[in-house]
Amino acid sequence: MTQDKEMKLWGGRFTKQPEEWVDEFSASIPFDQKLADEDVTGSIAHATMLGKCGIISLEEADKIIAGLRILQEKAKKGELVYTVQNEDIHLNMEKFLHDEIGETAGKLHTARSRNDQVATDAHLYLKNQSEEILELIQTLQSVLLDLAKKHVYTIIPGYTHLQRAQPVSLAHHFLAYFWMLERDKERLSDAMKRVCMSPLGAGALAGTTFPIDRHFVMEQLGFTSVYENSLDAVSDRDFMLEFHSHASIIMMHLSRLSEELIMWCSEEFQFIEFDDTYSTGSSIMPQKKNPDMAELVRGKTGRVYGNLMAMLTVMKGLPLAYNKDLQEDKEGLFDTVETMKGCLSIMAGMLKTMTIHEAVLKEKVENDFSTATELADYLAVKGLPFREAHEVVGKIVLYAIQNKMLLRDIPLEKYQEMHPSFDTDLYEIITPYAAVNRRNSYGGTGFDAVQAALKKAEATLQHS
Amino acid sequence: MTQDKEMKLWGGRFTKQPEEWVDEFSASIPFDQKLADEDVTGSIAHATMLGKCGIISLEEADKIIAGLRILQEKAKKGELVYTVQNEDIHLNMEKFLHDEIGETAGKLHTARSRNDQVATDAHLYLKNQSEEILELIQTLQSVLLDLAKKHVYTIIPGYTHLQRAQPVSLAHHFLAYFWMLERDKERLSDAMKRVCMSPLGAGALAGTTFPIDRHFVMEQLGFTSVYENSLDAVSDRDFMLEFHSHASIIMMHLSRLSEELIMWCSEEFQFIEFDDTYSTGSSIMPQKKNPDMAELVRGKTGRVYGNLMAMLTVMKGLPLAYNKDLQEDKEGLFDTVETMKGCLSIMAGMLKTMTIHEAVLKEKVENDFSTATELADYLAVKGLPFREAHEVVGKIVLYAIQNKMLLRDIPLEKYQEMHPSFDTDLYEIITPYAAVNRRNSYGGTGFDAVQAALKKAEATLQHS
Amino acid sequence: MTQDKEMKLWGGRFTKQPEEWVDEFSASIPFDQKLADEDVTGSIAHATMLGKCGIISLEEADKIIAGLRILQEKAKKGELVYTVQNEDIHLNMEKFLHDEIGETAGKLHTARSRNDQVATDAHLYLKNQSEEILELIQTLQSVLLDLAKKHVYTIIPGYTHLQRAQPVSLAHHFLAYFWMLERDKERLSDAMKRVCMSPLGAGALAGTTFPIDRHFVMEQLGFTSVYENSLDAVSDRDFMLEFHSHASIIMMHLSRLSEELIMWCSEEFQFIEFDDTYSTGSSIMPQKKNPDMAELVRGKTGRVYGNLMAMLTVMKGLPLAYNKDLQEDKEGLFDTVETMKGCLSIMAGMLKTMTIHEAVLKEKVENDFSTATELADYLAVKGLPFREAHEVVGKIVLYAIQNKMLLRDIPLEKYQEMHPSFDTDLYEIITPYAAVNRRNSYGGTGFDAVQAALKKAEATLQHS
Amino acid sequence: MTQDKEMKLWGGRFTKQPEEWVDEFSASIPFDQKLADEDVTGSIAHATMLGKCGIISLEEADKIIAGLRILQEKAKKGELVYTVQNEDIHLNMEKFLHDEIGETAGKLHTARSRNDQVATDAHLYLKNQSEEILELIQTLQSVLLDLAKKHVYTIIPGYTHLQRAQPVSLAHHFLAYFWMLERDKERLSDAMKRVCMSPLGAGALAGTTFPIDRHFVMEQLGFTSVYENSLDAVSDRDFMLEFHSHASIIMMHLSRLSEELIMWCSEEFQFIEFDDTYSTGSSIMPQKKNPDMAELVRGKTGRVYGNLMAMLTVMKGLPLAYNKDLQEDKEGLFDTVETMKGCLSIMAGMLKTMTIHEAVLKEKVENDFSTATELADYLAVKGLPFREAHEVVGKIVLYAIQNKMLLRDIPLEKYQEMHPSFDTDLYEIITPYAAVNRRNSYGGTGFDAVQAALKKAEATLQHS
Repeated sequence: MTQDKEMKLWGGRFTKQPEEWVDEFSASIPFDQKLADEDVTGSIAHATMLGKCGIISLEEADKIIAGLRILQEKAKKGELVYTVQNEDIHLNMEKFLHDEIGETAGKLHTARSRNDQVATDAHLYLKNQSEEILELIQTLQSVLLDLAKKHVYTIIPGYTHLQRAQPVSLAHHFLAYFWMLERDKERLSDAMKRVCMSPLGAGALAGTTFPIDRHFVMEQLGFTSVYENSLDAVSDRDFMLEFHSHASIIMMHLSRLSEELIMWCSEEFQFIEFDDTYSTGSSIMPQKKNPDMAELVRGKTGRVYGNLMAMLTVMKGLPLAYNKDLQEDKEGLFDTVETMKGCLSIMAGMLKTMTIHEAVLKEKVENDFSTATELADYLAVKGLPFREAHEVVGKIVLYAIQNKMLLRDIPLEKYQEMHPSFDTDLYEIITPYAAVNRRNSYGGTGFDAVQAALKKAEATLQHS
Repeated sequence: MTQDKEMKLWGGRFTKQPEEWVDEFSASIPFDQKLADEDVTGSIAHATMLGKCGIISLEEADKIIAGLRILQEKAKKGELVYTVQNEDIHLNMEKFLHDEIGETAGKLHTARSRNDQVATDAHLYLKNQSEEILELIQTLQSVLLDLAKKHVYTIIPGYTHLQRAQPVSLAHHFLAYFWMLERDKERLSDAMKRVCMSPLGAGALAGTTFPIDRHFVMEQLGFTSVYENSLDAVSDRDFMLEFHSHASIIMMHLSRLSEELIMWCSEEFQFIEFDDTYSTGSSIMPQKKNPDMAELVRGKTGRVYGNLMAMLTVMKGLPLAYNKDLQEDKEGLFDTVETMKGCLSIMAGMLKTMTIHEAVLKEKVENDFSTATELADYLAVKGLPFREAHEVVGKIVLYAIQNKMLLRDIPLEKYQEMHPSFDTDLYEIITPYAAVNRRNSYGGTGFDAVQAALKKAEATLQHS
Repeated sequence: MTQDKEMKLWGGRFTKQPEEWVDEFSASIPFDQKLADEDVTGSIAHATMLGKCGIISLEEADKIIAGLRILQEKAKKGELVYTVQNEDIHLNMEKFLHDEIGETAGKLHTARSRNDQVATDAHLYLKNQSEEILELIQTLQSVLLDLAKKHVYTIIPGYTHLQRAQPVSLAHHFLAYFWMLERDKERLSDAMKRVCMSPLGAGALAGTTFPIDRHFVMEQLGFTSVYENSLDAVSDRDFMLEFHSHASIIMMHLSRLSEELIMWCSEEFQFIEFDDTYSTGSSIMPQKKNPDMAELVRGKTGRVYGNLMAMLTVMKGLPLAYNKDLQEDKEGLFDTVETMKGCLSIMAGMLKTMTIHEAVLKEKVENDFSTATELADYLAVKGLPFREAHEVVGKIVLYAIQNKMLLRDIPLEKYQEMHPSFDTDLYEIITPYAAVNRRNSYGGTGFDAVQAALKKAEATLQHS
Repeated sequence: MTQDKEMKLWGGRFTKQPEEWVDEFSASIPFDQKLADEDVTGSIAHATMLGKCGIISLEEADKIIAGLRILQEKAKKGELVYTVQNEDIHLNMEKFLHDEIGETAGKLHTARSRNDQVATDAHLYLKNQSEEILELIQTLQSVLLDLAKKHVYTIIPGYTHLQRAQPVSLAHHFLAYFWMLERDKERLSDAMKRVCMSPLGAGALAGTTFPIDRHFVMEQLGFTSVYENSLDAVSDRDFMLEFHSHASIIMMHLSRLSEELIMWCSEEFQFIEFDDTYSTGSSIMPQKKNPDMAELVRGKTGRVYGNLMAMLTVMKGLPLAYNKDLQEDKEGLFDTVETMKGCLSIMAGMLKTMTIHEAVLKEKVENDFSTATELADYLAVKGLPFREAHEVVGKIVLYAIQNKMLLRDIPLEKYQEMHPSFDTDLYEIITPYAAVNRRNSYGGTGFDAVQAALKKAEATLQHS
């Protein structure tokens, strides 16, 4: 690569040119070319405004905009050849525009600096990506909702501490994730206020002397407010940090679901089986069918957390305004966006295509002690203080374990020996169906409560 | 400590009692006693609801509530003696209530589990603390605004890359932080939707069989919605993670301001001097006056980031619903809340009492090259393409450096030798005052723009 | 609290005293009092050296040392009343010494600064704690080794992707953790080189004018080297970061073991049962027996990771030499040390007392497809390329699943239909015992290999 | 891309093929192709061992090895076309080998699984990279040492709290970083024990039935030990975590140096100027010369911390043995390795080419109060208790500040008014040269001490 002295846009004060490998260490074009479309979009809005405000002539503005549209097409088709020598997406684009329309290209940079330009690109990128991610979450929610609708009366063990606690409707379990994702959407939507802020016009750090119209640009770009302070505009990355945080919480949620799915398809649980499409085998062990996709989603939580931590570190203790450290904001952001989009899609596909072993679930919930609470409630209703009822039932469970029995196997006499209040109706009470059916408090797992929750979830989905 | 078998509320199924040191490893009472007030508040709302719904009698409800109010008073006065044997704040309180009102105390736990109870306490705590923190941010903003009002016409060097870039109004600099903090408040306010959700009534995980009224409790507690799903209600900690994230961003902002203040009071900058109240000396070096408070604020950024990362780690891959890992949610949260409150207060005090060395600033801004952009603009206005103007001025700066001159020291002939468009009016253009004065684009540092920004900031503060 | 002006050791240059709450924000005595013993130990070595080098008289040295020994006793008995006014452990101790021996106390601070003093305390603390932690790991290893010795012939399913892969000796599984912990010990031991470095004598930052003997102090304190550079000595915290990192890896290992134990005691696995001592119940569900301790260990991984991240953040971008940010180094370190010591102890106790359900394991390993690899190897030995053998056995497994059979249930004719090389000896090959028994490659699960591994492990433990 | 059924090496048990985009989500070949050389190297050692042990014939071994050497050449020349369909580097290589030598290729996978193979590749990679990094650190140290040798008598202000504390030799300052890097090398070297462990032969998880010789392979690969346990061998990633930790500490050190360099080249400090090669300008502001490279190094600290946190998260709570989550181990590792290598090189280049403004430094150190400690020592030597001497000098400094004088400007009478012990010799004592010259304690900044330290550093460098 030969150094083209004319191309360095800041060379007057310098007596030497950077060595090539220093250029490469410093250049952002290898990754920020991903912002090509946003960069052109921002430039078109800027050029339109410059024309409207008479800062350049309308003819010049039109010429620039026409050139930019050609670049936008070329970028989409992958026809632009970026060079490290031109450092970043902004200078590469300026060079391309110059090749396209000649000297007029130079006027585009009037009343603008790379500092406000890159901030604008980043805001545009995150606006577009947030919208896509919101849709992907919505899709995943509708998959969960569909599953829930099918499985209101499928009962699974409910766990606390990974110990069987109380039986619950499988629909109820899926809906738990529905609501987590609903909050995730809320967070991303709330953040949009801060994503849709226009930094353009902040200049290098102090604003500009030209009579620009920042609110016009804001509208052109679909933003909803402008940064009130130019120093803040070029050095703020908290809109990114907020996104990283929300993304980390989303991945945390997906990691929990992944963990459950991985356990559920183990030999020990056998609650579900993944479709072959979402499984892989072993090159050694012919019987293996591995839940690789769920494991990858769980594992990718790490990189999203890592990207958050990286950016928090970058920003710590940086003085105002723009510092080159901020160039480190992009790769992690791109990675988190793409990771999350992949994970949301994979998760939706996995859930949609997996088989739920209803017979296994039925067999499981009928053969444990997870309705013991019902017995305690039974005694409590008959007037025993709950603490005492709990103690009595605890002893019954211990007796059953020691004698390898289930609750339904213990004869009535034995129950009555434990406490005289027991009667034959206890055997109905301790079926999983009855246990689930009775928990109809708002948000509970009772079938009626779940039916109501399904309606609420459906309405929520339609209105978002 | 002797084990009181009756006190373990789940002992029926067990044949041995925990050893003392295992108890200590497991107990949360050493730290969750901080939730005493929230725990009682939640219990009062719960008891009121139980009475209203006829689940317990109104007399019982009244008796319980009266007892709880006594405990609330005692807690405030520090008169309650918590024991590790009673594990956590909930069981300690239940024991105290029993001591206070006898058997009726046992009825309070009807239709409630520690799982939904601790979640309720945490939501209440974070609601209260978020409100306090919002006020502290507001206070800090008003300190910044007051400083800005006083320093519209104080000019300081504006930096990018810690190199002098363009002179700016000191008011403009302070307002940059004002707007960062405004977004911080926005984030905390947005999060309130998710903080003010009531989990009470979710039971252990599946809801309850009692005819409870969760919306009534919600209103009693000042919450604005209820969790739609009981599994979600007892296992969600994303409202905490969101707080940790927002707190990390706030601390990131404070770390930037701290870094600047630390540099500003160095021998090299001398922009400011902290009040003695916010400084310390050295036990060895008699001349030292250290900006310890600003350094501590910067340093404490670490622990707030760390608490975020800790909680993200805890939640990664946890299956539903409640797991004991969640007990780890509290200490980090308390630490972040208290750290941030301390830092916001200290920062306000530091800023309020510091001395700004206006004479030094004046001397600094008049003796550098940071108005070189003005010269380039000057040439651009005279028709030179900006890139060419930039090149010319770059060479002028190089000439000046090599000859140990400032821009104002270079004679007109030399300027004209560099480019014929230069004329005598250039000397006015390159004063810092002129440079700042000309940047009146919206959000820019021009004096008029800053005056407008002050009004906007003031209005914003009054309406939040 | 009244300000005692004489007590501020740096007050000459100041005209005002800090407000009380600012003192509290800044003071480290609430937490650094934990270093009381190390502080006195360091002071005794320093005083001894001052006497030896003639910097103070031997009488003075003796008087100081005698006083310090009294303080050391008092500290152990909890008889010292620390005050925030005296900021930190060093000034508190100096004041106590003054109270004890009068004016001579002032000579102790000769040729020393709080900057090198606090670094010395921290090194001493970490030296002592690392030694304790090494012993706790050793104990945990010996518990694992004992379990392994008992369970060479207990076969459990070996997993990859949480899918049954190949049966393994339970001893082999326990030994996997033994070797992880061995590396953990190696890391802590390697780090000792950097923990046992003496900073004392570095002064505030630049060394001292007194003819001190730093190597003498080093020996007194049991250190093995001195910092070669005074600036480095007072500002280095990488010995702490290294400890945080190693601690994080240890906790990562414990989190993996915890996760397995939690799964193993679930209803679905039933491999083990924890002793009542290490379990808790539910206040609602009488049947529950929760593995709280294992969950807590897993959860506490978060805080140890968080403390690492906190300290990395604190150190990022700090200029030389000492900065007040470094005061933030202690609380996280203490927390990580204590957390890890608790977790190592709890884990040893849990493992030692848990019951392993051998009958369940036997039943499990005999009823799955995890010896399918044996069949593929069987065909490979008979000359089939492994890839082809794998394909054949894959189809056999599919056939078995579809017909709800196990490998041993498939009649020979069917096997021979799949591939003619099969013969009646295949049925012996596919028993779990045979499968384990054949894997005697070095480090493999074969019984002979495991017996050899036990010997190696035992020897390793004895020599560390 | 068409699915080639024969290529999936685990297809027998499956009835469907993955969709293409699921393949892409799951495939590691886009990044693990970086391990091509290590993969072939490991395979050559494995094939050699298989031949030596008679597991395959020597002819087969030779054929395989010859084929592998061809692939190794092709890989270096970039002539291999990897496909996502073949998932990872191992299967791609196996396919290439098959294309090269036909059926015999299949024998290479005897007694090996991808699980132990990928672990081997990773160990080899990190061994090679650690060696390169050690050399880069060594180079950076020698640059620092050269600078130190040149600047023994260049005095700069020494700082604590970014306040001038005591003057120090610039050599001393550079040597502080020399010793930090020496510990960094020590850590990487200590870690080599765990990097140079051979997992090959662990099979999928349980070892193998073939009579392999793992120690022979170990020697072939230049490793120093073998994993003692097969489960551990395939699931351990702590050797990577340890590297991430050490890398984070290295970057922390570089971030501190970067921060100092950035401040030092500011207008306010002016201690240094970077060579044009390591600086960039502004497209707007013609006077700007930005320390971009130093800023980037400081910023890149974030991504290295982030990669550590990512991997810690991935590993948290993973059960044994291999899980697909572990595939997430590579990208972060590659990124950290390359980031660090770039930063170490850039830092060496920056330091080597920067200009140190000795005249500025001389002017700075002569015009502050940083020799006030000398005055206190002066009084102490004359018999004043140090605390009292400190108080007296504090007042002198305050007097000087209030009267805009330096210490040398205050007339002797005034000094004597402050304390009668002062005499005319004080003026010599308070020169920076004298202050530095007197601090010759071991590791101190005194010129003699620094000369000794240079010798020690030189010897250290030669023996590492």
